Amino acid sequence: MGVSLPRKELFDVPEGVIYLDGNSLGVLPKGAVERAQKTIAEEWGTQLIKAWNTAGWMALPQVVGDTLAGLLGAPAGSVATGDTLSIKVYQALAAALKMRPDRKVILSDNGNFPSDLYMAEGLIKTLDQGYELRTPAPEDVAEAITEDVAVVMLTQVDYRTGRMHDMSAITKRAHDMGAVMIWDLAHSAGAVPVDLAASGAEFAVGCTYKYLNGGPGAPAFIYVRPDIVEAIEPALSGWLGHDAPFAMELNYRPASATERMRVGTPPILQLSVLQEALKAWDGVDMVDLRAASQRLSELFIAEVEARCPQLTLASPRDPAERGSQVSFAFEHGYAAMQAVIDRGVIGDFRAPDIMRFGFTPLYLDDADVVAAAEIIENVMRDELWRDPKYQVKSRVT
Amino acid sequence: MGVSLPRKELFDVPEGVIYLDGNSLGVLPKGAVERAQKTIAEEWGTQLIKAWNTAGWMALPQVVGDTLAGLLGAPAGSVATGDTLSIKVYQALAAALKMRPDRKVILSDNGNFPSDLYMAEGLIKTLDQGYELRTPAPEDVAEAITEDVAVVMLTQVDYRTGRMHDMSAITKRAHDMGAVMIWDLAHSAGAVPVDLAASGAEFAVGCTYKYLNGGPGAPAFIYVRPDIVEAIEPALSGWLGHDAPFAMELNYRPASATERMRVGTPPILQLSVLQEALKAWDGVDMVDLRAASQRLSELFIAEVEARCPQLTLASPRDPAERGSQVSFAFEHGYAAMQAVIDRGVIGDFRAPDIMRFGFTPLYLDDADVVAAAEIIENVMRDELWRDPKYQVKSRVT
Repeated sequence: MGVSLPRKELFDVPEGVIYLDGNSLGVLPKGAVERAQKTIAEEWGTQLIKAWNTAGWMALPQVVGDTLAGLLGAPAGSVATGDTLSIKVYQALAAALKMRPDRKVILSDNGNFPSDLYMAEGLIKTLDQGYELRTPAPEDVAEAITEDVAVVMLTQVDYRTGRMHDMSAITKRAHDMGAVMIWDLAHSAGAVPVDLAASGAEFAVGCTYKYLNGGPGAPAFIYVRPDIVEAIEPALSGWLGHDAPFAMELNYRPASATERMRVGTPPILQLSVLQEALKAWDGVDMVDLRAASQRLSELFIAEVEARCPQLTLASPRDPAERGSQVSFAFEHGYAAMQAVIDRGVIGDFRAPDIMRFGFTPLYLDDADVVAAAEIIENVMRDELWRDPKYQVKSRVT
Repeated sequence: MGVSLPRKELFDVPEGVIYLDGNSLGVLPKGAVERAQKTIAEEWGTQLIKAWNTAGWMALPQVVGDTLAGLLGAPAGSVATGDTLSIKVYQALAAALKMRPDRKVILSDNGNFPSDLYMAEGLIKTLDQGYELRTPAPEDVAEAITEDVAVVMLTQVDYRTGRMHDMSAITKRAHDMGAVMIWDLAHSAGAVPVDLAASGAEFAVGCTYKYLNGGPGAPAFIYVRPDIVEAIEPALSGWLGHDAPFAMELNYRPASATERMRVGTPPILQLSVLQEALKAWDGVDMVDLRAASQRLSELFIAEVEARCPQLTLASPRDPAERGSQVSFAFEHGYAAMQAVIDRGVIGDFRAPDIMRFGFTPLYLDDADVVAAAEIIENVMRDELWRDPKYQVKSRVT
């Protein structure tokens, strides 16, 4: 039995805002400003270079990695932090391809987050060894895993619709066909229970600025299954992934375990704030979180469908097949989302016609969901999205 | 004629500390705490996801890149920021090798910062196409640039000794031999005048937490010569380097100019603080800076050599051949540096026997240099480094 949810008292959500975009950028944890001040003024300002030791900066990526491991069903030492999710995708993919030298196919799906596909494209071009990226529709992925597939690389929860792959079944299928499995947990970490150890997947990657509330540009993470990590020669073999970075040896020797997936000097300010943000997860039972997430999203769907016949559910109807977000399709979705945002309900828009709403049980309750549905109804019923000011596509996110 | 130096009033240096390690981690600019507070509390906290537009976060990497370009003699739009220096080395090297498909040699030197060599090693193993990394002694580099060399990759200022390569002469030699030139400016940016446009080099990379005072883990940068950038297909082709990141296209199309060298979601907290730190360079004439740096380091060498016969200068004696640091070799350098640090003069140690001191004219003056030399004399004359507490190698940096 975990702490009770929500824990609104741990976050600063602006007055008058119902924030349904924690799947894009989480809200501000109350301790973040103070922590950043401490890191900057006390640690950097007064300890200067010594802070790498005295303030624990050198160990921070690993300490934060271990906290993340705890949230993902992974053992201590199996998760490294730093860089961006795209970089972590590249690392995982490069390492996975080396594990299946006789196969030339990377299998993903056409619902994957584009950056993952772009990183695969870049790696394929860089290697120039005849690799092929296959992207069937998400529902066809399982049967597309054939014996020529080297690596299956999927995002568990679809960034547009919230549709969720069955991690355990697909990993098993990949392994049955002799492929290596990489999971992108961008929309899973802090959103749904994840048991990486039980999944048997070789690699997982993810970001921390969504459901984990690490702040804009918070560091990414990578998990490597402990029994395979010692055989990995990292493609991005930077000094912080060296066994003895300060020995200044001329040749690379990988650090033990997943620490070898670190690359350069860690982003200490971002890591400090992330560490602070992760305190909100102390005592949270992920089964409770999932139950709350499903209750909130079921309520949202019921309220919106009852109020807004103009909107078409674009997420799976079965809550077991969704992550922690709900999307509706609407032809004028961009303008409608601007109108909704203007009235204090913050979701976001994803091309071509998706209005996307995230549910974060750490700081949302039923009353928020009902109030949000009322505002969306208002915008749809009165066609407030027709206002010319909402037609201009000025937003870049 | 630039502003007068030093500008101590712009920085918070702890009382009683003489900081000669700005070549490793710069000091705290006075506006940094307030800027971080603003970014976190006001922008993230109240604008949330909208801040990508309303607070200018999306543009921040480019804005900061243009400021850096101004400090490096590079045109606007030619410098991209983000990631770590090691990642930027990989990007430059992967792109450079594609420009010389018939050549298989990467030439560096054995004084290069190890992470640059490690990243080259990692790329070579990943490509698995018979590439070779050659690392002659720094003084032999010029003649080692032969017609089989695809890429010359050098750090301009040696991290241990401060010895400086002749950027213009080596770039010319590389081009004469048909090789592509990559400069690592880690110890050059903010330390010595750099004229990237005049150098003709194809690529340059660097970090911002040393002389540029961006803080621990501040983002790196990469310069690409404008006439070649449009032909580059980035190896690390992430969504923020896409021409239209939010169109969510399934295929990668590189952004224009050096923006294509961006990869993932930018580290906004680090970038904000870096932008604030760069304000200290407003109006600084790099020729004045170089003159002040040479005056400080010449004074330091004279004072230390007069006071400490135990120490052997490990840097070039000619100030024109040094960057903005001075190193002395001493058998018990590790312990001696700990004793010096304990007395308020902060330098650092680099294996095997180098005591390293950086000179940062933004916040150091002649009196600081003389006071530092007095303390070093004290430690050497009285052999204070023999204290057992200085023998334990607990420091990791």
